[in-house]
Amino acid sequence: MEEKEISRAVISRLPRYYRYLGELNDEGVERISSQELSEMMKVTASQIRQDLNNFGGFGQQGYGYNVRHLYDEIGSILGLDKKHNLILIGAGNLGQALANYVNFEKRGFIIKGIFDRNEDIHGREIRGIRVQPMENIEQFMKENDVDIAVLTIPKTGAVKIAEQLASYGIRGIWNFAHIDLNLPENIKVENVHLSESLMKLSYKMNASGKEK
Amino acid sequence: MEEKEISRAVISRLPRYYRYLGELNDEGVERISSQELSEMMKVTASQIRQDLNNFGGFGQQGYGYNVRHLYDEIGSILGLDKKHNLILIGAGNLGQALANYVNFEKRGFIIKGIFDRNEDIHGREIRGIRVQPMENIEQFMKENDVDIAVLTIPKTGAVKIAEQLASYGIRGIWNFAHIDLNLPENIKVENVHLSESLMKLSYKMNASGKEK
Repeated sequence: MEEKEISRAVISRLPRYYRYLGELNDEGVERISSQELSEMMKVTASQIRQDLNNFGGFGQQGYGYNVRHLYDEIGSILGLDKKHNLILIGAGNLGQALANYVNFEKRGFIIKGIFDRNEDIHGREIRGIRVQPMENIEQFMKENDVDIAVLTIPKTGAVKIAEQLASYGIRGIWNFAHIDLNLPENIKVENVHLSESLMKLSYKMNASGKEK
Repeated sequence: MEEKEISRAVISRLPRYYRYLGELNDEGVERISSQELSEMMKVTASQIRQDLNNFGGFGQQGYGYNVRHLYDEIGSILGLDKKHNLILIGAGNLGQALANYVNFEKRGFIIKGIFDRNEDIHGREIRGIRVQPMENIEQFMKENDVDIAVLTIPKTGAVKIAEQLASYGIRGIWNFAHIDLNLPENIKVENVHLSESLMKLSYKMNASGKEK
């Protein structure tokens, strides 16, 4: 690989750049300077230049960045130039909320199958996709090119299901179950631990209250 | 304040310590060494000691940590020893999922009011709480000791509503709207940008695919 190692901090900032550049592009903006981007995003222009330098000469001195080009480049770094087929495991409230969220589809994340252990909802359709029993996952993955599983199930059982998914060849897990999955390194996991996020908010409020 | 400044990285790890300690406590474990915690949590024992040292002498050489004590201390640092009253703005799928998530309540986060702009669902109950029109928020906040607003509305309008909430005296916003709110510093914001999290997963999968 030609590319240098990109730090985790930079990567975690890329989706935000992508969002701002997408909005600028939608508004028809063609070029933007690091200074203008800095004002919009409330980060320093030098951090923007440093971050974007990681991906080679996108910016031109005095001309700023080509919005569309930078947007596409970051999209491609984020893997958004390819389609991803998803299965959703857990069709409760949160699973349904995610299945109904159209923006994921716009970004190339397509939910292909929905699975739940609750018999009562088998056969029910969520956005045109029939909820199936968990036992069907293996066969479904053989017949469909699924690369991501979205886990919206309680933490009990999540580790076991993640291990099964791994054995069926899943490549990535978007994990909403409030537990660490500890899978082999070739299977990528991104956790969304909602209670932990709420605790961070509570921490910030608590810490700032004490300063008064 | 006696406490030293705690780094953001340490803070972001606290909820995870809290989760593991809570589980240990539930299992009746009274003491744990940094080494044992290290094996469970897959982080180095020295990082655990360093992190927990930030909060003063919780550990005793040779005895390990008192699980219950450490759990309570971290809970208090995270502000979980107090009750927080929440209002939920946006009663769509995601809002309903959050309202139905009992774990928040166990941690002292109590949803007191639910508001939505959609007239069709006004009066409908979600977990015993009636959905009200947005116009009622101001009065509701005067009559109830609300400190956190959960924003589960589309990004259009989110900034304006956040500003209104700020003027009504909200102290914290848990923001699921896919936009930056840019509020005064005394109002704490924690963002959950789900599409950005999914992009990070896609990045990891994409980067690891290239290494093959």
